[in-house]
Amino acid sequence: MTEYKEIAISEFFEKNKHLLGFDNPTKALLTMIKEAVDNSLDACEEQGELPEINISIQNPEGSTFKISVEDNGPGIPRQYTAKVLAKFLYGSKFKSLGEAGMQSRGQQGIGISACILYAQLTTGKPVHIDSKTKEEKMYSCDLMLETSKNEPVITNEKYLETKKLSGLKITLEMKGVYRRVKGVEDFLKYTSIANPHAKITFIDPEGNKVLFDRGVDKLPVRPKPVKAHPHGIELGTLIKMLARTNSRTVFSFLINDFSRVGTQSAKEIFEESNLEAQMRPNAVTRDQAEKLLNAMQKVKLQRPPTDCLSPIGEAELIKGLKKEYKAAEFITASSRPVAVYRAIPFQVEVGLAYGKEMFSEGEKTEESEKQAETAELIRFTNKVPLFYQQSECAIFKAVVKTPWKRYGVPQSNGSLPTAPLVIVVHVASVWVPFISEGKQAIASYPDIIKEIRLAVGEVGRKLQRHISAEHRKYAHERRMKVFEKYGDEVASAISNLTGRKKPEVAEVINREIQKRRE
Amino acid sequence: MTEYKEIAISEFFEKNKHLLGFDNPTKALLTMIKEAVDNSLDACEEQGELPEINISIQNPEGSTFKISVEDNGPGIPRQYTAKVLAKFLYGSKFKSLGEAGMQSRGQQGIGISACILYAQLTTGKPVHIDSKTKEEKMYSCDLMLETSKNEPVITNEKYLETKKLSGLKITLEMKGVYRRVKGVEDFLKYTSIANPHAKITFIDPEGNKVLFDRGVDKLPVRPKPVKAHPHGIELGTLIKMLARTNSRTVFSFLINDFSRVGTQSAKEIFEESNLEAQMRPNAVTRDQAEKLLNAMQKVKLQRPPTDCLSPIGEAELIKGLKKEYKAAEFITASSRPVAVYRAIPFQVEVGLAYGKEMFSEGEKTEESEKQAETAELIRFTNKVPLFYQQSECAIFKAVVKTPWKRYGVPQSNGSLPTAPLVIVVHVASVWVPFISEGKQAIASYPDIIKEIRLAVGEVGRKLQRHISAEHRKYAHERRMKVFEKYGDEVASAISNLTGRKKPEVAEVINREIQKRRE
Repeated sequence: MTEYKEIAISEFFEKNKHLLGFDNPTKALLTMIKEAVDNSLDACEEQGELPEINISIQNPEGSTFKISVEDNGPGIPRQYTAKVLAKFLYGSKFKSLGEAGMQSRGQQGIGISACILYAQLTTGKPVHIDSKTKEEKMYSCDLMLETSKNEPVITNEKYLETKKLSGLKITLEMKGVYRRVKGVEDFLKYTSIANPHAKITFIDPEGNKVLFDRGVDKLPVRPKPVKAHPHGIELGTLIKMLARTNSRTVFSFLINDFSRVGTQSAKEIFEESNLEAQMRPNAVTRDQAEKLLNAMQKVKLQRPPTDCLSPIGEAELIKGLKKEYKAAEFITASSRPVAVYRAIPFQVEVGLAYGKEMFSEGEKTEESEKQAETAELIRFTNKVPLFYQQSECAIFKAVVKTPWKRYGVPQSNGSLPTAPLVIVVHVASVWVPFISEGKQAIASYPDIIKEIRLAVGEVGRKLQRHISAEHRKYAHERRMKVFEKYGDEVASAISNLTGRKKPEVAEVINREIQKRRE
Repeated sequence: MTEYKEIAISEFFEKNKHLLGFDNPTKALLTMIKEAVDNSLDACEEQGELPEINISIQNPEGSTFKISVEDNGPGIPRQYTAKVLAKFLYGSKFKSLGEAGMQSRGQQGIGISACILYAQLTTGKPVHIDSKTKEEKMYSCDLMLETSKNEPVITNEKYLETKKLSGLKITLEMKGVYRRVKGVEDFLKYTSIANPHAKITFIDPEGNKVLFDRGVDKLPVRPKPVKAHPHGIELGTLIKMLARTNSRTVFSFLINDFSRVGTQSAKEIFEESNLEAQMRPNAVTRDQAEKLLNAMQKVKLQRPPTDCLSPIGEAELIKGLKKEYKAAEFITASSRPVAVYRAIPFQVEVGLAYGKEMFSEGEKTEESEKQAETAELIRFTNKVPLFYQQSECAIFKAVVKTPWKRYGVPQSNGSLPTAPLVIVVHVASVWVPFISEGKQAIASYPDIIKEIRLAVGEVGRKLQRHISAEHRKYAHERRMKVFEKYGDEVASAISNLTGRKKPEVAEVINREIQKRRE
């Protein structure tokens, strides 16, 4: 007889650890740091605290690494600590389709539990937690994850004295491989570029201390929760929202539960749909909901508000690029207005640095040699750098589909342009659709690819103007050189013809050439 | 205050539908058919029934498609029907790490629930089910998925009379786009090649009936469940297995719970580990488990048994290619022995067809024009064709890393070879690690990539011998042509020198040339 049973999500992820970013030991170590830092930054910003994060990676023996990540965030109240950290799909940041949400780094309630699971899978050891909230004493415990039930197992619970006001510290041991380039250190460097308000201290496995200091002393404006936008919503979601709403009429439901629907647009939706505005939401049939949905799509509405998002900003992108690429001869950036996919607001920002000498300074690594040939693409989502699965990412796809030749830069089909270019793309969204739970690449939703292409096109055109101006300058210079070359002969000839002294004639000619050069 | 809560896996997938293969309407339609056909084939084989699957796709209006998939499998007992179909992570095929398993198409308990969720999300309608087991009357109902709880909602339950012995029929409406090439019809064609024992009837949206008939009248040998192999197991998994086992001693645990461990190898493991063989499994500490694990990795063991897998077979691969590519001048195939990744057995088979005229016959589509330039790669896992996410797939990565130039075929860096080639790769495994729940690409585990490269190398070398032989044949032919060209003159000269008649001399020379040509 076939045996049917329920499967715990933790058993599923234990077997599918590659979905969570733990498919090889280098990536595993980076994923661990990334998940912890993402959570710390989110927590500090939520608390209104300037983030101060201390990271340490030790390598006591072989491939075992002892890692600790400590922040000055709000900590987690004792009754939630274990579940938030060691239970999959448990947390504060996930919002259902149709629920109001705002931009944050974590969004799934999966990442940090995955780290704890991976530590226990590779070393068999529990993870040590110290959590201090402002209200409680410091709570300290060891955590494992009972995978057959998706429940945390708590041992060694203690309450400790500390001078710390609040914060969370996670200490764990796991197997891994440490890599500096495009590894933990680069991840922290890029994180610091996109989050200049954070102070990050890192002690690497060799004991070197690296400080990524604060560039600004002010927190970015906190994004505000935003309701679903009527454009792009699906029928199933609308039906679910109708069933769940607290609004008494469909009319008030439209105004209360959606973004950018006011009395006027609600009226227009009802005119378009031929429905009764005063009917109760839970009395709406499937067919009526379909009519309502079609009307919602047709009525013209404002774009979603921008305050649900926290972009890096054009000026900051340019500043960051200037700092990192001092030899760049041209730097620009461009921000698109907020757009919508599946009723979810998102915004694309692109920065670009160009310069023939850009990659030649500094240490010559194999990496930098390669970069000198192909443009470098740096991807961010919600201010988090992405290092893996580049070729599957909507950002990469949009950038390679951009007609770079038109902007004066060579490019072979389906590849990044071949030029000394750095392209930075940031996609900020209330909900970023990643291609897997490991959150390393954005899924190829056409609306998202389109916006990225538009943004890249904007900086591309600016680059093209720079390159043409450069070409014109060279052409002009070449012309001037020709005049100079024959200036002496022309002076002799004119001197012969007119009888005036050659040096005088030459001086006039040279003066004219100089004038045109300026 | 931060609000912490548990998130239903169904809410997570509703928001992340692209993880399940529903990121665009073309792919959504294909995914729907794929998940239903996978389940039907698995069910029929489990029951020992030759599969007979009837698929119909209607397009009553706009982008709405009405789909039904019916099989002659065992059906699902009434008390499980709703949960198996409309609850995520519920089913019969998932095995935890360390549990015995065997090759099957479905493996997650996710696919068909995803189809039901997508239908309800895009059309708001329930899915209709007819399930007949041998023991019960036909059970018929409508199903939806309550996403906030991950539970099915059943309506219109009925028991119906039917002449059918057993089988399952799913009927649903969803939004989608129908594409023939690399869409549903091609999917069924390739499925039929890899599953010649299945009879598949398909009625397309235009009402055309396409029959993919049976090639063989015998079911493939049913794969047998296999226990974990000690090589490649992780510490956390070993600890979990020790906690769960029914064996009384660690010695019997090794023999009972692992594949390929007999009395002799168990003894060797204990000698190597310095542990007490008679200790109780649940008394083993973490440190002892680590010692045990290290010893298990060191002791030489037989490869896992092959009977847990159901490969297509070299002969069948060649037959399939001959049927599809009649103009191929060279066809070959190669099967690797069973290998192991993360203690899980898997096997790679590769088929190859080569021929300059191969793509020139038949209808000239844009697709076929492109194929004429680049080799075509056809990917299968557990006899299921994969159509999406090719560039992220371990199969693609292994094939492009193969040094094709060495085999006489042009290839540019990081690309498929540029030659009239069809390469078929099948990875069969007790557990295929896919890069996402949509199951369209294999994750890049180094052990898997290595095996694929070895298999591709084998057919590559065979191809190289064919191409060199071809070159030698041409060289020989050219040489013979030279002899023919000057044969007449030589005959004249010899006739002059010897006085024998020229026709006689010429005949001797031509005879010699003919001899060497054969």
